[in-house]
Amino acid sequence: MRVVPFKFEANTFWLLDQRQLPLEEAWVACHTAVDAADGIHDMVVRGAPAIGVTAAYGMVLAHLSGENPTEADQVLRKSRPTAVNLFYALDRMKPHWGDLEGSLREARAIWDEVEQTELAISQNGARVLKGQVLTHCNTGPLATGGYGTALGAIIEAHRQGRVSHVWVDETRPYLQGARLTAYELQKVGVPATLITDNMAAYFMSKGQVDAVILGTDRMALNGDFANKIGTYGVAVLAHYHEIPFYPALPLSSVDPRLETGEAIPIEERSGLEVTTVHGIPMAPEGFPAAHPAFDVTSHALVTGIVTEKGVLYPPFDESLRLAMGLLD
Amino acid sequence: MRVVPFKFEANTFWLLDQRQLPLEEAWVACHTAVDAADGIHDMVVRGAPAIGVTAAYGMVLAHLSGENPTEADQVLRKSRPTAVNLFYALDRMKPHWGDLEGSLREARAIWDEVEQTELAISQNGARVLKGQVLTHCNTGPLATGGYGTALGAIIEAHRQGRVSHVWVDETRPYLQGARLTAYELQKVGVPATLITDNMAAYFMSKGQVDAVILGTDRMALNGDFANKIGTYGVAVLAHYHEIPFYPALPLSSVDPRLETGEAIPIEERSGLEVTTVHGIPMAPEGFPAAHPAFDVTSHALVTGIVTEKGVLYPPFDESLRLAMGLLD
Repeated sequence: MRVVPFKFEANTFWLLDQRQLPLEEAWVACHTAVDAADGIHDMVVRGAPAIGVTAAYGMVLAHLSGENPTEADQVLRKSRPTAVNLFYALDRMKPHWGDLEGSLREARAIWDEVEQTELAISQNGARVLKGQVLTHCNTGPLATGGYGTALGAIIEAHRQGRVSHVWVDETRPYLQGARLTAYELQKVGVPATLITDNMAAYFMSKGQVDAVILGTDRMALNGDFANKIGTYGVAVLAHYHEIPFYPALPLSSVDPRLETGEAIPIEERSGLEVTTVHGIPMAPEGFPAAHPAFDVTSHALVTGIVTEKGVLYPPFDESLRLAMGLLD
Repeated sequence: MRVVPFKFEANTFWLLDQRQLPLEEAWVACHTAVDAADGIHDMVVRGAPAIGVTAAYGMVLAHLSGENPTEADQVLRKSRPTAVNLFYALDRMKPHWGDLEGSLREARAIWDEVEQTELAISQNGARVLKGQVLTHCNTGPLATGGYGTALGAIIEAHRQGRVSHVWVDETRPYLQGARLTAYELQKVGVPATLITDNMAAYFMSKGQVDAVILGTDRMALNGDFANKIGTYGVAVLAHYHEIPFYPALPLSSVDPRLETGEAIPIEERSGLEVTTVHGIPMAPEGFPAAHPAFDVTSHALVTGIVTEKGVLYPPFDESLRLAMGLLD
């Protein structure tokens, strides 16, 4: 059973509201590119590949609703600035702006390619995983529309009998691990245990984590990568405990304009998302909170990069360029 | 202004219900040792020194309510197995079991000594802090009944102009940082920012953390120590970023029976405390969660130990024994 985060039906792009999961399965209708951009910004849909597919269908909606394509493109580009898939998908939609049939075909092609790519990522990642695996945030079908990236690899490795148990970081403040990864693992029957983010080091020190695999929002050409806040800390902890650490991603999440991760912009979100949970205040009223939504992990902490072209090893500035066809 | 976590009035020991803070200031009445043990177990009161004082008054209540002292002592000892202060306080109360006046005097003496000890800890700790400081869990007056330990040092260092800003780990799953440390720092006007536990590494990597100071539930003679889950991870992260890392504690939290931290029992609490927040489910129904309430940090990750006798430096097996008068 695979979960689907969106569907296109009757000229409407429907988003499964991931903010309501796992308690409720509610669908949000998008009739315009602005609706789709709001869905991305408000995290009705999240995960880099799923954001790319949503943006592509956003441009289909722009055509259907008569929005100005330049404005639609701009509003979609601004909806989630860290996600390179957004720009990749919108760049591919541009030649089809005036053409409904062409833009529908291109959006569907982007979605199909996501599925094929993630099938390959899942199979490649499964080969390097064994025993007990820890993951952070959500990288399953809900985040992608396909098979998932890091979570796809975990599910495939479990199917092959290689992975026995998953530690699921709850992933504050949005609790994507508790809400979404737990939901997806429960649906497919993979044994898993939820932990608070601050328990990862404890289970690592007990020898109960054999590998870490997680997603990537955006990677530089040297292997530095941005991902959900907390990823960098897990990388340092895995390094200290000599546990293999793998980011998984489609090569479309590599930004060929970035030599290193230093220039990746970090989205700052509202502190209210830290101080309240489901609208209930957790801290004294008016207490300041920081909310960098992502962090950047150095390639020096990475064991291997799981991609659709195989698992890449250091030096990443060479292996990544080779996989991307950027070397002769 | 100092917060007080408990008071003894009219033969009743009143506990400020810390589970309701910062939203509500509710007091729970304890008439018996069993009430006091429940208050400790259910975390109405928490923090090692405050638990010790509560247990001492628990034995006063046993006398007043006519409970069997042996049974009262046993039920109190079982209320929170990681806290050595509990055993220390109950050992001191034992000679006064049959004597109301003596047991009242001893309980008050334990409380007074907590205050004097924490004043010294705060002053000693303040000397090693500067700039921006990160702390985990809650170690202020609410946790102690006195001036606080690690948080006392931070507040004193801020008063002296040495500390400019505090990063407050929210400290999942109980959110002691968000609820209690934030509450206490707001009351005394120390500039502070709440972060999720998984953001600590990010701010360390940005050079925005000059020192880490936090509490200790129980320390072995070599400097290994148990503290709130997440402490060990923060220690590894501080080590990696070459940031000074200080546990603060009264020497009564050192267990002279323990040579190393390996034998410290780790309390396992209910996974429901991870999967729900204020009774609202955060994960799919029935999803398993782990909840080790503490972890053990190796002395190898410790820069210095802040005590009432000064800041101790390696080798800790010598400096701790010297401070405790265990060396000739």
